[in-house]
Amino acid sequence: MRNNTPRHTFSTAMVIGTLGVAAVVTFAAKGACGEGIAECDAQKTPMTGLTKLSSKPDVSKLDAAVLDDQNVPMRKRMETFVKLLQSRIVDAVAREESSGSTEGRPSEFLVESWERKEGGEGISCVLQDGSVFEKAGINVSVVYGALPPSAIRQMSADHGGLVERIGYETEGPNAEVDSMPFFATGISIVIHPRNPFAPTSHMNYRYFELAHPKTLKDGSPNPRYSEEPAAWWFGGGSDLTPIYLFEEDARHFHKTLKDAADTEDPTFYPAWKKWCDKYFWLNHRNESRGVGGVFFDDLTLPAITSFKTTYIPVLDGEKRKNQVLLSEKQHDRESLFRTVRALGNAFVDAYIPLVHARKDTPHTDVHKEWQRLRRGRYVEFNLIYDRGTKFGLMTPGARMESILMSLPLHARWEYMESTTGTGRHNSSAALRAKAEDEAQYSAEEMEARRAIQAVLEQPVDWL
Amino acid sequence: MRNNTPRHTFSTAMVIGTLGVAAVVTFAAKGACGEGIAECDAQKTPMTGLTKLSSKPDVSKLDAAVLDDQNVPMRKRMETFVKLLQSRIVDAVAREESSGSTEGRPSEFLVESWERKEGGEGISCVLQDGSVFEKAGINVSVVYGALPPSAIRQMSADHGGLVERIGYETEGPNAEVDSMPFFATGISIVIHPRNPFAPTSHMNYRYFELAHPKTLKDGSPNPRYSEEPAAWWFGGGSDLTPIYLFEEDARHFHKTLKDAADTEDPTFYPAWKKWCDKYFWLNHRNESRGVGGVFFDDLTLPAITSFKTTYIPVLDGEKRKNQVLLSEKQHDRESLFRTVRALGNAFVDAYIPLVHARKDTPHTDVHKEWQRLRRGRYVEFNLIYDRGTKFGLMTPGARMESILMSLPLHARWEYMESTTGTGRHNSSAALRAKAEDEAQYSAEEMEARRAIQAVLEQPVDWL
Repeated sequence: MRNNTPRHTFSTAMVIGTLGVAAVVTFAAKGACGEGIAECDAQKTPMTGLTKLSSKPDVSKLDAAVLDDQNVPMRKRMETFVKLLQSRIVDAVAREESSGSTEGRPSEFLVESWERKEGGEGISCVLQDGSVFEKAGINVSVVYGALPPSAIRQMSADHGGLVERIGYETEGPNAEVDSMPFFATGISIVIHPRNPFAPTSHMNYRYFELAHPKTLKDGSPNPRYSEEPAAWWFGGGSDLTPIYLFEEDARHFHKTLKDAADTEDPTFYPAWKKWCDKYFWLNHRNESRGVGGVFFDDLTLPAITSFKTTYIPVLDGEKRKNQVLLSEKQHDRESLFRTVRALGNAFVDAYIPLVHARKDTPHTDVHKEWQRLRRGRYVEFNLIYDRGTKFGLMTPGARMESILMSLPLHARWEYMESTTGTGRHNSSAALRAKAEDEAQYSAEEMEARRAIQAVLEQPVDWL
Repeated sequence: MRNNTPRHTFSTAMVIGTLGVAAVVTFAAKGACGEGIAECDAQKTPMTGLTKLSSKPDVSKLDAAVLDDQNVPMRKRMETFVKLLQSRIVDAVAREESSGSTEGRPSEFLVESWERKEGGEGISCVLQDGSVFEKAGINVSVVYGALPPSAIRQMSADHGGLVERIGYETEGPNAEVDSMPFFATGISIVIHPRNPFAPTSHMNYRYFELAHPKTLKDGSPNPRYSEEPAAWWFGGGSDLTPIYLFEEDARHFHKTLKDAADTEDPTFYPAWKKWCDKYFWLNHRNESRGVGGVFFDDLTLPAITSFKTTYIPVLDGEKRKNQVLLSEKQHDRESLFRTVRALGNAFVDAYIPLVHARKDTPHTDVHKEWQRLRRGRYVEFNLIYDRGTKFGLMTPGARMESILMSLPLHARWEYMESTTGTGRHNSSAALRAKAEDEAQYSAEEMEARRAIQAVLEQPVDWL
């Protein structure tokens, strides 16, 4: 009956990091099931055997020395970085989980590694319904292949005209190339603790390359071929979503990220803090997803951006004309990679102590209700706004379980909830709900809800 | 800090029915807060006092005789119909709720009526966290005003070129009009029962009119002015979302709708059943939201559609070239209105007996878990696909609480859930999860989950 629905479309997806913004790239497929990232849609050819389970990510074959070795291609260095970081974060989360809490029985990570036939692999680590963590997803992926120009244009905002700037004719009768070799690797994390006083956190760092094709569309050798990438850029960010506000937690998280970014350039944190507030904004709620952190995209050198500047442009996500914040430092790819490593490495120190400190805080069903209501907003952000999630959802053949593991185990939606309801200031129903809540909940609880709501509606400079 | 974000955009929304497909129309505002549907965004001018609470919708001033009176404008007749229907459905739901269940304490409807300063009103009736119902939202609205052509084009798929077909120059230097008078009224319902064996249902019926403006853009009288609308159409549907499958429930629901539609034309049900399956499809999950029902849009006479047919086109939602299913009956607006009334009136008989029969079915936490997982898919559909919800969410100033009251009180997302996980057929992690589920749950439970999943993945002809 459903033969006319689009579910049989054989397009496919490369899931870069599989969680978080700009994490997914879609491209037109050649009609083969094997084009999918690792597993086929159940109704296409089954690909059982391409995934395998283990108790933790295997990093025994990785060489940490490549991280600092400029003679090794950046692809390999970033891949090594995200895999080592994944292992370290999985260890830190597992340690926190096994150290126990007053709630539930400890749970273990489900670690699944998969391969992409045409090139690439990934490792998904998910811990669910544990004693300390409600859900923790820590994914890495490395994918490569050939992308048509239309797909490359989707990869980021600023890179809309990237193909053209690189200088190949890609469309029309004079097209020199019909696709470009592409590489992407990244790490993506979403962690929802169980205790309502412990905050949720999300982190994603990724690296992209476009390469010169060896041959042109007509089969002739490409005179501009080079081993050096035609373009490359980093993107990513880390952000915190508390259920109840502890200002010292927000400050600690921001301070740890700022210290990490400052090691390379003090202009980074202020710009990327602002961009983060902008990106994680739920416009229909007039509130932020959380208390922010850092966020950036298109981090590369001026030569391959549309900005004609000597120094690296440090954007803050604003769409103002000629809006480029200039760093006073002359960067190279090494310093940008060091920045990304510093921010990624800072995650454990920025976040895990907050969970450790709050995981046993006594709480009641009232606190869990509020937690689930805030979780509902997290669901709203990820399904409505998040670029990576949206691309992934639109892509038959993508690994949906990885994309949607960012969603919490539990969420709740209340009509006219009195602290957050969008009509609460001018609706009779909301005023009645408020009176009921005030009769039902303690003054402390109402105050605590309003405190977090206030900073969500009006983001704060924490440092 | 947030002055550069788009949340201060003074566009606005008319929420037609406020739930369900095509229920929301957005248009550029004149910058005034009062353009909003009923309540302003909190950060604009407060409009306290425009809403009022009551215990149930007031229908004392409505005259049921207008329903059959062809001398009364259709606007008034449809408005009267949806308001009387709302009252009847609220009564039926409240009766079911107060008759009690083994769970929880009975809850009451929160009935809020609001006015739109520039023209229009609405009544939102929501019952939440009751003994029989987890959440039940039953909304009506009547809104009118002037819409720019760009907004009219968004109102439905087939009416994309409606303004042009009606024949006014609306853009460019020769534009005759810069807006058209507009009227919309509708009823929208989403009901989530508490018992996991009782199904969720959604219903929405709506009527739109575009009128000839009295004067043209330059202020001169419009030579084509007429009291008759320039265009009108009906849209709507009713559908059922069971958590566990009872085939007799699905058959009863479909049979009741089919009988209602057949009174006017036996071609309606088969076409609209198919359109319903198509519309409520979660493409990223390869499954339907539920077991369907009926769904249609753009229901009008051939004169004001782009289809050159003698008889009314009965579409089934397919985007095939020249795809028009012809009814053998010659319809007029009366017969179409009778169809909409028959379908709307059938809702109580189609749905409430299913809740009544299932509301006390014994169940455990295992059943509630499955219910919440299915609720999560409902959230996914409404936030990702539903046209009305999406329009509403993109519209600052819309009454978000009404738009989002379609969301359940509780939802759940599990990684690699073994009955529904999109990668379950070919992932090692899913196979392990399946083995764990089979060890944990009874064979009956696993079978029951698979039974509903099977009909969601492969919609069935119930009659």
